[in-house]
Order: sequence, then structure tokens, then C-alpha cells
Amino acid sequence: MFFHRQELQFKSTPEKPDAVYARKLQEVLGGQYGEITVAMQYSFQAWNMHLPGKYRDLVFGIGAEEFGHVEMLATMISQLLEKSPLGVTEKAVQDDPTIAAIVGGTDVQQGIVAGAGARPVDSNGNPWTGAYVTASGNLLADFTANANAEMQGRLQVSRLYQMTDDPGIREMLSFLLARDTMHQNQWLRAIEELKADGLEELPVPGNFPQQKEHTASSYEYLNFSDGQQAGDGGWARGKSVDGKGEFSYHDGPTTSAPMPPPTHPDSRFYGTTELPNAVEKASGAVQDKLNRE
Amino acid sequence: MFFHRQELQFKSTPEKPDAVYARKLQEVLGGQYGEITVAMQYSFQAWNMHLPGKYRDLVFGIGAEEFGHVEMLATMISQLLEKSPLGVTEKAVQDDPTIAAIVGGTDVQQGIVAGAGARPVDSNGNPWTGAYVTASGNLLADFTANANAEMQGRLQVSRLYQMTDDPGIREMLSFLLARDTMHQNQWLRAIEELKADGLEELPVPGNFPQQKEHTASSYEYLNFSDGQQAGDGGWARGKSVDGKGEFSYHDGPTTSAPMPPPTHPDSRFYGTTELPNAVEKASGAVQDKLNRE
Amino acid sequence: MFFHRQELQFKSTPEKPDAVYARKLQEVLGGQYGEITVAMQYSFQAWNMHLPGKYRDLVFGIGAEEFGHVEMLATMISQLLEKSPLGVTEKAVQDDPTIAAIVGGTDVQQGIVAGAGARPVDSNGNPWTGAYVTASGNLLADFTANANAEMQGRLQVSRLYQMTDDPGIREMLSFLLARDTMHQNQWLRAIEELKADGLEELPVPGNFPQQKEHTASSYEYLNFSDGQQAGDGGWARGKSVDGKGEFSYHDGPTTSAPMPPPTHPDSRFYGTTELPNAVEKASGAVQDKLNRE
Amino acid sequence: MFFHRQELQFKSTPEKPDAVYARKLQEVLGGQYGEITVAMQYSFQAWNMHLPGKYRDLVFGIGAEEFGHVEMLATMISQLLEKSPLGVTEKAVQDDPTIAAIVGGTDVQQGIVAGAGARPVDSNGNPWTGAYVTASGNLLADFTANANAEMQGRLQVSRLYQMTDDPGIREMLSFLLARDTMHQNQWLRAIEELKADGLEELPVPGNFPQQKEHTASSYEYLNFSDGQQAGDGGWARGKSVDGKGEFSYHDGPTTSAPMPPPTHPDSRFYGTTELPNAVEKASGAVQDKLNRE
Amino acid sequence: MFFHRQELQFKSTPEKPDAVYARKLQEVLGGQYGEITVAMQYSFQAWNMHLPGKYRDLVFGIGAEEFGHVEMLATMISQLLEKSPLGVTEKAVQDDPTIAAIVGGTDVQQGIVAGAGARPVDSNGNPWTGAYVTASGNLLADFTANANAEMQGRLQVSRLYQMTDDPGIREMLSFLLARDTMHQNQWLRAIEELKADGLEELPVPGNFPQQKEHTASSYEYLNFSDGQQAGDGGWARGKSVDGKGEFSYHDGPTTSAPMPPPTHPDSRFYGTTELPNAVEKASGAVQDKLNRE
Amino acid sequence: MFFHRQELQFKSTPEKPDAVYARKLQEVLGGQYGEITVAMQYSFQAWNMHLPGKYRDLVFGIGAEEFGHVEMLATMISQLLEKSPLGVTEKAVQDDPTIAAIVGGTDVQQGIVAGAGARPVDSNGNPWTGAYVTASGNLLADFTANANAEMQGRLQVSRLYQMTDDPGIREMLSFLLARDTMHQNQWLRAIEELKADGLEELPVPGNFPQQKEHTASSYEYLNFSDGQQAGDGGWARGKSVDGKGEFSYHDGPTTSAPMPPPTHPDSRFYGTTELPNAVEKASGAVQDKLNRE
Repeated sequence: MFFHRQELQFKSTPEKPDAVYARKLQEVLGGQYGEITVAMQYSFQAWNMHLPGKYRDLVFGIGAEEFGHVEMLATMISQLLEKSPLGVTEKAVQDDPTIAAIVGGTDVQQGIVAGAGARPVDSNGNPWTGAYVTASGNLLADFTANANAEMQGRLQVSRLYQMTDDPGIREMLSFLLARDTMHQNQWLRAIEELKADGLEELPVPGNFPQQKEHTASSYEYLNFSDGQQAGDGGWARGKSVDGKGEFSYHDGPTTSAPMPPPTHPDSRFYGTTELPNAVEKASGAVQDKLNRE
Repeated sequence: MFFHRQELQFKSTPEKPDAVYARKLQEVLGGQYGEITVAMQYSFQAWNMHLPGKYRDLVFGIGAEEFGHVEMLATMISQLLEKSPLGVTEKAVQDDPTIAAIVGGTDVQQGIVAGAGARPVDSNGNPWTGAYVTASGNLLADFTANANAEMQGRLQVSRLYQMTDDPGIREMLSFLLARDTMHQNQWLRAIEELKADGLEELPVPGNFPQQKEHTASSYEYLNFSDGQQAGDGGWARGKSVDGKGEFSYHDGPTTSAPMPPPTHPDSRFYGTTELPNAVEKASGAVQDKLNRE
Repeated sequence: MFFHRQELQFKSTPEKPDAVYARKLQEVLGGQYGEITVAMQYSFQAWNMHLPGKYRDLVFGIGAEEFGHVEMLATMISQLLEKSPLGVTEKAVQDDPTIAAIVGGTDVQQGIVAGAGARPVDSNGNPWTGAYVTASGNLLADFTANANAEMQGRLQVSRLYQMTDDPGIREMLSFLLARDTMHQNQWLRAIEELKADGLEELPVPGNFPQQKEHTASSYEYLNFSDGQQAGDGGWARGKSVDGKGEFSYHDGPTTSAPMPPPTHPDSRFYGTTELPNAVEKASGAVQDKLNRE
Repeated sequence: MFFHRQELQFKSTPEKPDAVYARKLQEVLGGQYGEITVAMQYSFQAWNMHLPGKYRDLVFGIGAEEFGHVEMLATMISQLLEKSPLGVTEKAVQDDPTIAAIVGGTDVQQGIVAGAGARPVDSNGNPWTGAYVTASGNLLADFTANANAEMQGRLQVSRLYQMTDDPGIREMLSFLLARDTMHQNQWLRAIEELKADGLEELPVPGNFPQQKEHTASSYEYLNFSDGQQAGDGGWARGKSVDGKGEFSYHDGPTTSAPMPPPTHPDSRFYGTTELPNAVEKASGAVQDKLNRE
Repeated sequence: MFFHRQELQFKSTPEKPDAVYARKLQEVLGGQYGEITVAMQYSFQAWNMHLPGKYRDLVFGIGAEEFGHVEMLATMISQLLEKSPLGVTEKAVQDDPTIAAIVGGTDVQQGIVAGAGARPVDSNGNPWTGAYVTASGNLLADFTANANAEMQGRLQVSRLYQMTDDPGIREMLSFLLARDTMHQNQWLRAIEELKADGLEELPVPGNFPQQKEHTASSYEYLNFSDGQQAGDGGWARGKSVDGKGEFSYHDGPTTSAPMPPPTHPDSRFYGTTELPNAVEKASGAVQDKLNRE
Repeated sequence: MFFHRQELQFKSTPEKPDAVYARKLQEVLGGQYGEITVAMQYSFQAWNMHLPGKYRDLVFGIGAEEFGHVEMLATMISQLLEKSPLGVTEKAVQDDPTIAAIVGGTDVQQGIVAGAGARPVDSNGNPWTGAYVTASGNLLADFTANANAEMQGRLQVSRLYQMTDDPGIREMLSFLLARDTMHQNQWLRAIEELKADGLEELPVPGNFPQQKEHTASSYEYLNFSDGQQAGDGGWARGKSVDGKGEFSYHDGPTTSAPMPPPTHPDSRFYGTTELPNAVEKASGAVQDKLNRE
């Protein structure tokens, strides 16, 4: 169960409205790595988890915090839109290009659809989608997904920080940056702990019997491009990160197989094929049979 | 530039057709973490990269390999569909529930749309979307995204491995599993090397001046759920992973701000507000003015 | 801010696993009118509201409850999937059509992607999308949207109730049905109250000056089909619901305008047009000019 | 069957082109509550209806009118784009910021893709989607959806009316506003009539046996937020709107259930679990068995 | 304007219900090449056309017919669903695998969402999207798109014809097949006529000055794969189809350019770069400046 | 297998950055008819082909070239974004409307998400989707789809050519235009050759027995609009293009069928119906039975 308190986790008030910035902020609200994504992702990880205890408590605990961040951003956006210019006409554009420019940079749906409000979309107006969420039941994979989400998130907030000089917006962003710092650290620590606890190991999934894979290819770096320096990295020689193999470098593939011949499905799929069609045409009997069906 | 060779990287031929499995295999071809995703993701990372040398050569090299894996899967799927039953009718269902069951489990678009062929969609028929791709220009973040993609990918292939006993399919999957092992190892090594090379550091982005964030909140674990064991993890005490702070544990938020008052945008957005509407109604003058516009 | 408590609002435990039903239940979790939709919709209405007091407290209050319903459904789904058959092969299908039939009816992504877990998608695997949300800032419109959402929601739950005889599932659904009953009643009451409070009136938006609309057409029923009984309804005669007009019935349109002539945009859009192309072709000068650009 | 007449229902000609406005108008053509949505929604309701007579004639009659509104908007948009500036370059931007501002505010796909034409998308370029349509077979629910659609639609047109001072555009919008007034009234009247005819009743679906729901919770307002005024509304006390219950107010939930324990699906989903993995590791036999599969 | 008549263009009644087939038929109703697509495509082409007369009359005339085909399919689907089994439970599955198999093959949303009705989606439940529509303003391109749509459409209907033996369904499909035959012929004839009328020519767009293209590459077949027979086709030698060039065959590219160096955008995008970061780190002054911002 | 070479097929370097143009160029990279579409489309056609030899070699050969065009565009876009203004604030807008205008015209996600890089999206930010791809297994249909794709593609590039005067961009576009010229010619030639080789014929699919279609309607032009000139085209009289029929012209439909009566599915779908509900209400026995379930 979720309980709501009518307070924000941190002050979220701009010094002045800025409809262009309101659009940009949608990215970290409703984008691929916005707050809706992490709130939903951590929650679904909790609901799908097969393990009681500290890891489940962790995803529950952070998931609920992130829903509060969605709220901080939505609240900020509606304030940024408070003086959003509505009645802009061609004449206004001609008189004051600045206003026109602002209009060009705004999310017009924030006005037409939401009446100067926030929306569950990204900065280009793409609706948030459940396809952003990762919750596989394997915690080593999922916590890596989480670490990535917090990295991409903090990166985007950093960029947004530089796109405004409004002290009110920057103050709120400084808080989100700090929380992203925490959350990056936390997921990376949780990854270490999963391994230390003997629950997971590399390669993910650690409990798939590795002898079933084609082990000859498990630690080969195969260079399918002609970059001369791909072999200079630590991935081309030395002990592998999982400690189970030795990296080696190869120019191109080490295995190869002939392309299988084209398939010939049921002729009633009416694909283009050489022989069956020819046969059919030659064979009145076959055609007749088809016609009778 | 890309050059194609009419060979596969590994043998991809099933022992016998299996239309139900052909649908399942779409997941690792055209799903969120399928081969199209990694092929596109690594390629866009290469095209957006701001750094010449080994890292760019790496993403170019692997990106091209992954396009070849797309091909292996598409080729396998069309073979699995070669004997796909087309003419199934209610009568057939009644006579042979097995056939009916197969139909129920197939992707009917593989038949109706692709004529017993592979499609750029996942196992539920959702078209692959560019929204799956991550290429931010920050390599520490992106390589973490890549590590996650290879983990989720190998996890899904492991599950698919257990969903068939066809030796031909399993052989191909064993190869993909091996390559995912390599690619997991490789991205994790590249992350280590990025840090060792002094190019990136935690928290991402390492070159955003951390003193601009609200540092008091940077290493606090805030428990927004009531799980008793969330404080038992390494994220609740001790040195942070980035080495820059000390984790601490808190029940709930350490900061709070009152919810800002509701906004009052231009009345011509026709939202529901208390005073302006009342005023307008009282004020014939205002209404008249609006009407004259 | 949101706080999570590790309890459910109501018992959500099936008597036995049922992977086919787990797929169906996704509809009311992540579909157009599922619990994610109402949770998000009420929350965005709260964040975009221009009015303090009881209406805002209402949407905040219900929004948080709905996030708890998302959780109840996700928890139920993961339990229904607990014994989900993974290793089904063609042989199994031939031996036991029942198992095969189950596989045909399941959401294979719940297995391959979520490892026998719930996902933010509907019963056909379409990811939940922010495009489902309505939060316009006009409460009479939005509360009507909410009433509809609760009606569609209770309708779908009713259908799902009849699709199972598992007492555990039915018990949980009986609770959701009751809450949908409450929420239908509540939004309809809130609509009455908005009008009684003088905040909104019909037609929405009540504060747009109605004399600006083409009033001659405001209460005409225009029948663009040839159904003989369209004129028998209360919408074809008598006082209008908003009390501001008199319905009238008309066979087809009462107004008409000639189709405007085709447009002729800049010829460099290279659309097909009669004269400009002909002119261009005749006129070497024009063509030359274009070529020099 | 549908028949087309090459006339418009109302004059749809702007006084002058306005490419920025052409983008905004896409919202009520191809957006969530645009004319394509209502045209399709009413048509699908007709095709899915289980009842002959006035209600079916009504949805057929209005559905066809709405396709004509799609046409009016598309025609208007292509005229607004007639002088759309194509050849804008950086130099032009520097010389005339007004032109640049216009470009910034336009839908560039209207130019690049449609050659200065209308598109089946909204004002942010999101393609219209069938996911907007509601046609459940239950008319009380669906007519409420229709009333909402006409409210949201008229609200958006009102906003758009204020975003231009072009008399030609305003004239067309004044007609659409009038039709939306009619259609709001009509659906609300149809709802009254459905009940009066004894075909439907609240709560929807009225013919689901209400004693099967958890009636103790059917009329309780549960406040999951801490707003002090949520209990002041008519939804917290007095007779319910459906006349079948008495509203009551409660701070938080009146029911509660412990969170069920985590699930343990087949270990070959390779999720992270405590015991099974440990057991497996301890048990060479199990591992061997898995390996042999 | 569109007018509806409550008749169908052709008889659309199945002999018996078939819920599995009802799902398959969704493909040609709401899929990429279903009737909604062609109805919308031809209509948008009409609204965007820059030319009065026979071509515009043609797209208007066919567009309206296609909306009637949408109706025929929706009507058929709702009849096929009339006896759709609702109350299927695990017990029923165990007792009668045939019923279970049917459930597996149905579109469960047709039941849960539409109450045994048709939906604007394809056979995998993907909502129809405006992204399927092509209406560019260039008629040679668009009529080619139309010819393709009618080809794909007739191909899918042919496959569906073989997936049933219900005489009622087959009768309706035989009519759609005939209309697709006509429409294929008609678009191909319209293409011929566009050229004969001197309105368009190859390559599209014919009125773009061809000397502006890199003419050396205009008729070269470049083989980027290693297929030995790519040079055997008519595209590798002889006169080009547009009559303006001579085909030639080349193994691989005939042009090449070095990959440009990586870009170095503003360092405040926080991408990974070698020098700027190093410089920044060395340069306290730069960092200080950034911090002061 | 695909192999990458770190060279471009043609020079792709702008003279100067232009962030507005970088957005527009996304259309031909990641739009409906962008390079990702053709690269994927030709590749899937190859993988799904049922015919060895020149046609398969052709799609393989061109598919790989198109992936190289994706790369050329992505490379160009990242260069155009190299000086993309990041730190634009309201003050900057007021000081320099030109900068603001540029911001308004840019794809803000190229900055916030990709750090001044290219993305797999179109010019409105819609992610590329697998729904754009056509690969049906019938080559006459698919090559027509390909011809259309190259026509729409060249049309869009022509428009984009006119939207810039940067010689570097124009040079690259002149190359893409030339390749589109070749590819249009090539698919049209391949269509001729398919017919000449006796592999396919009109109407598609040529091997569906045409006598099974309702031949009376196979060559009738039915005018469902009131355009007077629809009968003037070659599609209304004379020999049909496939040589198998004679076109004829008809005002409106030549066939008609009464609309079937509404369906009455299982009452537990809770749709609105007249009799069954009334019966149920009258019949306590039925209701009791339902309640007991």
C-alpha cells in the first residue's frame, strides 16, 4: 500500500515561469530514464522478487521515494507554465520574435491538452511507456539496469542544470543530483553485496550451467570492424572479469557456417518460390485440387 | 560502411520445425533486449562518440557482430516456420487439439503478414522501437547500459534454452550464450579501463562539479517503505562506492517542503479555479472584454 | 511524497497457479483502463489542479489508493505464475495437449522477460502508455473521464470474475469491484458538487463565452446515417441537458460549404500540381533559377 | 457503407496561412481527443452494439458526421500550410528571427513528409493510435466515455480559439464548438434515457450481481493522502449516487492483508532466490541433472 | 462530408462463430495493410492533393469505399465472437483441451475490453497507428504506395482465405479479393496515366533538377554483399527504367570518404572526451568558471 | 554476417553546425521512410526469401549499403550538433531571439538524451519502429513496397535539399539522391524481371486461384464520392493492367447486403442488450443461477 503526504521531499519552486524549460523538464519526468521509469522499475522488481529481506526492502524503499520525485517534477512544471503565453498570434510573432521563439520551443500539448500542466510524456511529447521498465527477477542483471538508469538520469539532470540559470530550478535539480549520486552508489554496492552473499555471480545468470554454452567462443574478442585499436583494450587479453576465462583477440569471426537454403513453406502462403510455382503451373491436378478446397 | 557475407557466424538450423518456438525466439531478435537493440545501440554509440581510438573501435567492432546475430535468429525463425500449419480450421481443432494448441501459441502475424517469416517484433508482436536504444555520449553510463543489455540478453537466452529440446536450436543458443558471456565481460572490463584511463569516474557524469549538488543528501539511504531490513545492506553504512562519501540510514525523508499553492494560469485555458471564475462571473467587464477578443 | 507499507489493502492469493489467467489479469493492471492508468490519472490531475481544498484532496487520496491496487494485481500475477510451465517442448505438446493449450494462452514475455513475473503491459502485451492519461485542468471534464475509467474498469473486472472459479482470485476481484463501485459513485457525486459549488457548468468549458460558438448548430441532431430511429431519442427534441437550448432533429447537415480548391504550396515540395509544373517546364528561366539555388 | 460528398459541413478557410497554427490544429484532428478518435469510437460502438434501434442509429449517425469533421480540419490545415516557408536556412534565421521562430513552432513533418499537408498525428507529431478508442459493448460506460471525449474536445477547441485571431479559423472553430455543445448534451441525455429505459443502471455494469462484490467496501471513502478536506465532499457522507448505499469517510484503509511471501518459480527462470540456489549449489546431483537436460 | 447507409457492400455473415478466426481477421481490419490504413491513406491523399479533377475524385471515391470495408470486417468479427467462450476455467481446460486451445488462440482483449467485439488493432493486438499512412503530395510516389498496399492486402486476404473453410467467411473474403484486384489494377493504371498526362516522371520527384544529384552514382548497382548472382539481373546492365541512364555493376562501393573525426560538443553535455576533460582537470580556472555559473 | 569498415561511402561533413537542420535530418535517418527502414526492410526480405539466386543476392546487396547510409546520416547529424547551444536561458532569449528561435527548432532530446548526438527517431522525435518494415515473402508485392520507399525517400531528401544552403550537407544529399534514383530504377526493373521470369504476375498474389474471388466485382470502378471526373480515368474503362479484365464505371456500389442483426454474446460480458437483460430480470431462476457460480 502507498500513502501520500501533501509535502514535497524538497523545495520545487522556480523564481519565474519558463514555458520552454517546462518542456525540457518533461524528459526527466516522463522520458526513457525519467522518474516514472525508476519508480515503476523498482516497484515491479519488488513485486517480482523471489527473495525476502534486505534486497526487497531496498527496492520497495527506493521505489516509493521515486514516486515522490515524479511529483516534485510535475509540480515544478506546472509552476513553470503558470504564465505560459496562450494567445499568441501571427501578429504577436511579428511584433515580438521573443514570444514567438518561446512558443516554438514549448510543448504545445502542455497548453492545449493539459491547460498549462505537466504530462506523462518526454521532452518531445512521446508518452511514457511500460517498455522502459526492466524487472527480470535476476537481481544482478536488474541492479545493473538500475545503476545505468541512475547514471543516465543524473547525466540528463546535469545537462538540464546547465540549461537554466533560475536559482529555484537549480536548487531542486541540485537535490535530484544528490539523490542520483546516492542511488548510483547504492546499486553498485548492492551488486557487490549480491556476489558477496553468494546469491549471484558473473556471467549472468550465474546459475545457468556454463558448460552448456559454446565455451570456445566465451572469451574471444572478435573484431567485425577494421579499427586498429580494438585490440589494445583489456577486453582483448588477460583474465576475464568473471575470473573464469582468458580474453583473446581475433580479426573477424572464428566460426562460420553456410547460409541455410531458402525455406519453402506451404504454397498457400503465396510467397515467391521457384519450383513449387512452376510445378503447380505445370500440374493442372495440383491447381485443381487447390481450387476445390 | 557495412559489408555483408552470405555466411552465418554459427550453424542455425533446427532439427525440426516448431512454430510455437519461432514466436518465442522473436523476443531475442526484436525485443527490448534483443539483438536489434544491441546492434543499434552499439552503432549509435560509435556514431555519437567524442573520442577516437580503442573505445570507438570496440563499439564499431561489436555492433557489426550483433547485426550478424540478428541474421542468425531471423534465419532460424524462418526455418522453424517452414512447416507452419496454415489451413487450420475449427474442424482441425476438434480433431486434433495438438494442432489447435500450436496455433494458439504461434505469432499469427508470422503467417498472415510475413508468409512464414521472421519479423522485427518481440514475442508478443510489439514492433521493435528506437526507444530501446541508449547512446548518451557518456561512456561510463553507456557501457553500464551495455553490460545490462548483455545480462538481460543472456538471461533470456538461458530461459529459451530450457524451453526447447531441439538440438539444433540449442546449439545455436549455446553460441549466443557464449558471445553474451564475452560481451558481459568485455563491457565490465571497459568500465574498469575507462576509470583507469582517467576518462570517467563515479558518480556519472564525473565531470559535473559535485559541490553543486545538495551534498547533504548525497549518501543518505532514505527508507520510504517499512521494510525492517533495508538498513542491513552495505548501502546504509560505510564508505560509498565512489569513495567520496559515507552512507547513512534514515527512516523516511530528511528534508521536506510544503506543497506549493495551486497555479492560476491564463483563464483562457478554461481550467477549474475558484477565484478567477467567480470574479469573471461577477465582472461583466472582464467577460465583455473576453467576448470582444 | 509517497510512503509504502509492506501490506496489501486486501488478500490477494490464488488457490492455485494459473498462467493463462495471469495473462488476462494484465489487462486491469496495465491496460487502457487498468490500475496504472487511474493511479497516474488521478495523480496528474492533482499536480495540475488550480484549486486547493476538497477536490484536490480527493484526487490525491484516491490516486495513492490506486497505486496500492497496482501492487495487489502485480502480487497476484506473480503468484499465479509460480508454477508456470517453462520447459514445454513439442513432445510435451503431443503428450499433453492441455499443457500445450496453456502455453498458447499465456503471455510468453511474463516468462522469457520477467522470469514468471508481472509486467506493466496489457493482456496482449502492449506496454502501458502515458497516452491513456487524462488531466486537462478542467474538473468537470476530468471527473467525467474518471467516472468512465471506473465504469470500464469495473466492467472488465466483472468479465474477469466470470473467467475463473478460483476462490482466491474471485475474493480479490470482489474487493476491486467494491472499490470501483465506490469510485464510480464518488466521481459522479463530485460532478454534481462541482456544479452545485458554481465552479463548472455545461457545456464544458462553462466559462468559454457560448455566444462565440455558431449557436444555430448548438442543439441540432444531424443524422448522417439512415437509421430511422435516431430521431426517437431524447436528444432529438425537448430541452437540452445543459438547460440552455432546445434539441431539434434534422436528416443530414443543415449547413454546407464548397470544398476549397486544392492548395499550391512552394513548388520545391515537389508535390504533383497541374499548372506550376507545366509552367516550370515551359519556362526555362524558372528552372534555371531553381537550378542555380 | 459510407458515401462521400465533395462539400464541407462548414466553411473552413483561413484568412491567411499560418504554419505554426497548422501544427496546433493537428491536436484536434489526430490527438487523443481529436476528431479521428470520436469518428472511430462511435463507429466501433455501432459495430459492436448488441441492441438495434435508436441507440445504434445514434452512434452511426454521429460517427459519420465526425469523419466529416476530420475532413474539415485536414482541409484547413493544408490551407494554413500553403505558404509554409520551405527554404529556411541559418542565414534566413539570422536575417529574420520571425521566420526562424515560425520554423521552430512548426511540425516539420508536415513539410518534409506530407509536402505541406495534414497528417494523422497530434500536435507533437505522435501518430493517432487505436488505443484511444473505447467501445466496450456496455452503453452506459461507453456513453460516459463519449461525453468525456466531447468535453475534452470542446475544451481543446476553446483553447485553440484563443490562440489565433484569424477570423476564418475562428469561424470554423465556432462551428466545431457548437457541435461539441450538441454532442455533450446528446450523450448526457442518452445516458439518462438508458436508465429510464431500464437498460442500464449504476454501478456499471448494472447486471453484475452486486452481492458478489465485497459490499463492506462499496461506499467507503478511504483517504490515502493527508488532505484535511477530503472528508468535506458529498462523497464522504450521505446517500450514494446509485441510491444503493451510504457514503462513509475513513482515514486510510479499513482492510489490510499481509504481503504474501515471495514466489519461487522453476529455477530454470534463473531468478535470484535464496534457498533453491543454495541447495542447488550444495547438491551436485541437482546440478548434474540440470546439466544433462 | 461522409454519409452512412445501414447496409453492407456485401454479405458478411459466418456460418458459425469462430473466436480464433476473429482474432486473425483483425489483421486486415486494423493492421499495417488493413482496411483502416487504406481508408485513411486515400482520404489524406485527397485532402492533401494539389490538383483538382480525376485523380482527386479517384482517391475520394475509393477512400469512402474502404471505410465500408472496415465496417464489413468489424461486423463479421463481432458475429464470429458471438459464441465466444467466456467462462473458461482451468477445470474446463482439463476437461476439454479443444476449448482451452481456442482460448489460447483468441484475442483476449476482444472479450475483456470489447465484450466480444471488434477493435481497431491488428491480429497481435497492436493498436492501429497513423504511422501506417502515406500521403506525400507526390502522386507517383503515393500511387505506388497504394499499389503496394493493395498487393499486401490481397496477399493477406488470400492467406486468411486458406485458414478457414467457413463458406460465409470465404464468401466475404472472395469479395474483398475482387476489390483488391480492382484496386491493384486501378493504381497501376493511374500511375501510367500520371506519366502519360505529363504530370510526373521517374525518378520521383521528377521535377527535382536531376543535375543536382551526384549523377556518377545514379545508375550504378553496388553489391555490398558477396552474392554471385546479383550482377545477373536487369538492374546491373542495360538501359535504366526511367530511360535516363545505363545500369552498371560494381563489386562494393565506387566512392569512399574517411570517417570524420569525433565531435567535441560543449563540455557541459558531459560526454566522454579525451582532451577537453583532461584540460579541464588541469585547469582550475576553467573548472572554477564552470562552478561559478 | 556483417563487416564494418571505418570509412563512409561518401563525404558527410557540413560547412558549419546547424542544430535546427540536425533535427530535420532525423526524418531520413529514423522516419517511416528513413534509411533504417530500408536497411531493415531489405534485410528481412532476404532472410524471409524462398528463392535462391539473383533476387536474394539483390536484397542482401542493397540492404548492407543502406546500413552505411544510416551511418552517413548519423555522422552528419552529430557534426551538425557540434556547436549546439546548451546553456540557453530566458535571458539569452531576450538578448538574442535568433538563439531562442534555434532552440525552438531543435530536437531537445538530441541534447538532453544523446549529448549532441544522433538518435534512432524521426524529425518529431518518434522512435523508429519495426512497424515500418514490409517483408511478406511475395516479391512482386515487396519490390513494389521497395519502389515506394525509395520514391518517398528521394522526395524527402529533395525537400531537405531545399531547406539548407550548406554546401557540405547538399553534397551528401546529392549522393543520397543519386542512390535513390538507382534504387527506384532497380526495384522497378526487378518487378519487370519477376514477371518476365514467370515467377509472379498480377494481381498479387498471382498464384491464388482467381476464380475463387467474386469476379463480377474484380474490374468495377465504384465511385463512393460524387466527384464528376472519377470516370474520366483509364481505370474506368478499357483493358485492365493485368490483362485479365475490362474496367467498368459505376456510381456507387453494385452489390449490397442488409446489415446483420446485432449480436448477443454471453450475458456475462455485461454488454447492453434489450431482451436477455429483461428476461434475466424477470427470471429469478437465471439470476440465482448466475449468483451461485
